[in-house]
Amino acid sequence: MKCIGFVGLGNMGGPMAGNLVNAGYEVKVFDLVTNLMSAVAGGTPQATAADTAKGIDVFISMLPAGRHVDALYNGEDGIIHQCDPGTLLIDCSTIDPATAQKVAAAAFDCDLNMLDAPVSGGTAGADAGTLTFMVGGKREALEQARAVLEVMGGNVFHAGDCGAGQVAKVCNNMLLAIQMVGTAEALALGVDNGLDAGVLSEIMKQSSGGNWPLNVYNPYPGVMADVPAARGYSGGFLVDLMTKDLGLAMETADQSRSSVPMGALAKNLFRVHEQLHGAGRLDFSSIQWLYKPELKS
Amino acid sequence: MKCIGFVGLGNMGGPMAGNLVNAGYEVKVFDLVTNLMSAVAGGTPQATAADTAKGIDVFISMLPAGRHVDALYNGEDGIIHQCDPGTLLIDCSTIDPATAQKVAAAAFDCDLNMLDAPVSGGTAGADAGTLTFMVGGKREALEQARAVLEVMGGNVFHAGDCGAGQVAKVCNNMLLAIQMVGTAEALALGVDNGLDAGVLSEIMKQSSGGNWPLNVYNPYPGVMADVPAARGYSGGFLVDLMTKDLGLAMETADQSRSSVPMGALAKNLFRVHEQLHGAGRLDFSSIQWLYKPELKS
Amino acid sequence: MKCIGFVGLGNMGGPMAGNLVNAGYEVKVFDLVTNLMSAVAGGTPQATAADTAKGIDVFISMLPAGRHVDALYNGEDGIIHQCDPGTLLIDCSTIDPATAQKVAAAAFDCDLNMLDAPVSGGTAGADAGTLTFMVGGKREALEQARAVLEVMGGNVFHAGDCGAGQVAKVCNNMLLAIQMVGTAEALALGVDNGLDAGVLSEIMKQSSGGNWPLNVYNPYPGVMADVPAARGYSGGFLVDLMTKDLGLAMETADQSRSSVPMGALAKNLFRVHEQLHGAGRLDFSSIQWLYKPELKS
Amino acid sequence: MKCIGFVGLGNMGGPMAGNLVNAGYEVKVFDLVTNLMSAVAGGTPQATAADTAKGIDVFISMLPAGRHVDALYNGEDGIIHQCDPGTLLIDCSTIDPATAQKVAAAAFDCDLNMLDAPVSGGTAGADAGTLTFMVGGKREALEQARAVLEVMGGNVFHAGDCGAGQVAKVCNNMLLAIQMVGTAEALALGVDNGLDAGVLSEIMKQSSGGNWPLNVYNPYPGVMADVPAARGYSGGFLVDLMTKDLGLAMETADQSRSSVPMGALAKNLFRVHEQLHGAGRLDFSSIQWLYKPELKS
Repeated sequence: MKCIGFVGLGNMGGPMAGNLVNAGYEVKVFDLVTNLMSAVAGGTPQATAADTAKGIDVFISMLPAGRHVDALYNGEDGIIHQCDPGTLLIDCSTIDPATAQKVAAAAFDCDLNMLDAPVSGGTAGADAGTLTFMVGGKREALEQARAVLEVMGGNVFHAGDCGAGQVAKVCNNMLLAIQMVGTAEALALGVDNGLDAGVLSEIMKQSSGGNWPLNVYNPYPGVMADVPAARGYSGGFLVDLMTKDLGLAMETADQSRSSVPMGALAKNLFRVHEQLHGAGRLDFSSIQWLYKPELKS
Repeated sequence: MKCIGFVGLGNMGGPMAGNLVNAGYEVKVFDLVTNLMSAVAGGTPQATAADTAKGIDVFISMLPAGRHVDALYNGEDGIIHQCDPGTLLIDCSTIDPATAQKVAAAAFDCDLNMLDAPVSGGTAGADAGTLTFMVGGKREALEQARAVLEVMGGNVFHAGDCGAGQVAKVCNNMLLAIQMVGTAEALALGVDNGLDAGVLSEIMKQSSGGNWPLNVYNPYPGVMADVPAARGYSGGFLVDLMTKDLGLAMETADQSRSSVPMGALAKNLFRVHEQLHGAGRLDFSSIQWLYKPELKS
Repeated sequence: MKCIGFVGLGNMGGPMAGNLVNAGYEVKVFDLVTNLMSAVAGGTPQATAADTAKGIDVFISMLPAGRHVDALYNGEDGIIHQCDPGTLLIDCSTIDPATAQKVAAAAFDCDLNMLDAPVSGGTAGADAGTLTFMVGGKREALEQARAVLEVMGGNVFHAGDCGAGQVAKVCNNMLLAIQMVGTAEALALGVDNGLDAGVLSEIMKQSSGGNWPLNVYNPYPGVMADVPAARGYSGGFLVDLMTKDLGLAMETADQSRSSVPMGALAKNLFRVHEQLHGAGRLDFSSIQWLYKPELKS
Repeated sequence: MKCIGFVGLGNMGGPMAGNLVNAGYEVKVFDLVTNLMSAVAGGTPQATAADTAKGIDVFISMLPAGRHVDALYNGEDGIIHQCDPGTLLIDCSTIDPATAQKVAAAAFDCDLNMLDAPVSGGTAGADAGTLTFMVGGKREALEQARAVLEVMGGNVFHAGDCGAGQVAKVCNNMLLAIQMVGTAEALALGVDNGLDAGVLSEIMKQSSGGNWPLNVYNPYPGVMADVPAARGYSGGFLVDLMTKDLGLAMETADQSRSSVPMGALAKNLFRVHEQLHGAGRLDFSSIQWLYKPELKS
């Protein structure tokens, strides 16, 4: 497995493709924004997405939304009609599970295996090759893809059949949103009642309140260095992307008629924050401002 | 520091007093329920609470609510009027911070140091002597108390001044409630969309959705052994106690005019669950039923 | 304006078409379920939807969802390609505003005026010809349509441009959901504290708590006759339809990035109720059970 | 019944006492703020609250909170120990039902009848004598009080036994809060999607979204004259008072173990608004700002 096609070279896809080049793969790249192609040093720019699909072993995509994924694979001149038999398809985009299943089924009708493999770890993880992959699809196909995925990230989980990677991603990110908002709320309650945010964080981290944000992504300024809260919430995982993922979670819940009151409230508190503070392009831990507006100025 | 008075010998206080006896302390015990006194082997039963306060170095209490604590210390014949000068007072009850501060101030007026030292770790932690103490009060008083506290639990945190231990406890337990409900919600969403609860738990535990319930207290039956979910949610931390603690959190928020939308929703979802399923005496991870009613039967 | 084409003859569309026949219009009818056509006495059944579009003055549709509306008007053989110049198009379905705008724009490109005219009033209003129409589109087109609409319902509101009828409908129904859940919650709180549901309803109806459910659709059994609560919540406006409308409200909010925390919570409480009580086919005022489970048996 | 004692002469109590004077009653008045006594023209200022209790037929109080009511009636020198046999006691304060019941029981032990009679209608209603009374206590006692109450307001409801007036008040105000927030949310959703706030208000008012705020207290600026929204949300019913009443509702729910998710969310949204916009002293319809921050400037 030597030759890879890669479509979608944004903040995530660009460094992912770069890591594949650095690991010795031949990588054909394409993006509608042409200068993103030249930014992948060692990649081979192509004239069209379809061109990346020829003569390769693995095709990888990293796109913004389900409609782009559907169009790329399944549209006229779609990848599933262009690539050679036996090509393994891997979509790393975060999209709704229903579209992931639909596209994988179309690929299967063309005798192609497809994996949905959304990632967590953000742009820092994409740069460092330390992403986590949550993979849906056949286990054999995942084993076939494992060496390539491990170039881009060390943690590779098999979530289940086609679409299961997307489901795992939206569940994880909904829970992340809930506990980030909850953590900001608990820290503000403590500070409002005289506690030091750092002391309270340390206590909760080692108690039953412990969670990922308290461990590595504390939202309260002054508690941790090297987190978005330490630099005015710039960089990181944007509020706009969190509300997008929460939108996918709500959509997924609607299709299964599941109730998600906590996720729905978290989503709407992010929206209130976004509207009141113009916070769409800030890191999602800036939700702390909703509880401590005096931190803003 | 050899002699201890201990009032309140219920599910928590009983084993705590027992551990002090086992560590070699002389322990005078009192409870309104007289046979709880004889259950503490090696303790010396007293006729009244006031009797436990005489000739001791440290006085410890473990009671249900703020009004009991206020009455015990601060009422007619209250401990602060009965004990010798220099006695150190430690209240381990979980109560509202305002009452904790009021009682400590009254003790201080009698030249006595008082610590609020609520615990986490449940009855299992009380038995095993592995409780966590969140302590409010003077640091010197805490250092004076440390040897005694460490007999009952290894983790001792100084949260701040008087009342700060209670504040830390309610913040921690509010966050715990939020992430337990959030975890149950995320697991149900995944299962409703075809994922295995154990696989999804493992993925989220190692991702940004990671939290204390996923690590040691998974609410979904079949994922972990030796948790309440594995035994029909019997034992553990009762829904009734969680709603009590959430009530304290709401009260604390009201006094500081803090907003706690996620905590308030979590509390009310526990109430819906309690009313619909008669779940007050079940472990709080039984909130999973609200999202997967078919697990009930 | 004498001849009307009508597609979609379900619980709502059937009696609406019947009222038009009774008012003296010539009505060509079509439904995929053929016996629904014969149920409209005096209507002229057609072989296809396209056949209803020929030689008419006004075309009316009443369909379940946006994708059906898009396909009917805008697909191959769509109505906008089949009907005569000058035909006025009226879609009475409740769908997402974005699809309503898209279809109206396509009609406009074919030099046709189209109105989105969703209704409130339920099957009882459809039968009695007392529906309320919330109409989006050009005011002149609405005036042209008024006589026909008034056969089916007395209240005709002009909400604004194309799509505005749908926006008004989702806003109204989101507020209805919020105040129905809120009313059920307030009544249960009163009853739990010793009040009579009827007495409390009367007090709130005449005070600042007054709202439409208290006036004509009380959710508490025993307060009003001739409402769903008086007959075990059968009939009326189904929970499944309310959650559909709330889904449209959430979608509409997402597109405008509006925050809707109360609407989102109401929606999720309906979902909890639906799952716990199998209540999808009950009237939406059955949400009272979520607050008073003992009413169920 | 000619002579009345009246304690508590603030924004509400002052004009209420004035209306009693104007109706020909002899009114003994007391307030800790002495110049409030002289502001009641025709009233007879007293040196102490106890002095107002002598030689009267009816005693009326209007105080901020339960602890004041308990102290006034039930403390040392309390009214129930000072007044003549047969005096009728009426507390018009809005307080928690439990305290209302406790004080009425103490009065009953002294062979006195007591009514809890909280009001709605605000300062405008107090001035104009158009308050609504929600009365708890014996029906005979209410009939005895009716002539006096009707001087201060036309609507007098018998809610039930002692405390029932308070329960009715908190239920009504919780529902009011829910529908005010819901109305602000629905209006913002409509405006965000191109509708005119006035047009949408009119549609919903005449549809199933109709409620008291839409009828007489529209929160969106520009829709109604002579409401707080028309004057920058000054005057009216303050956010601080609404959150106080919602606090009583939460407390009442806690005692009956009722679930109040919608009320709890409404309360916390008011808190977010209060903190972010410093809105405690604005009318509660200013919650519109939370949904349309651009209206603030």
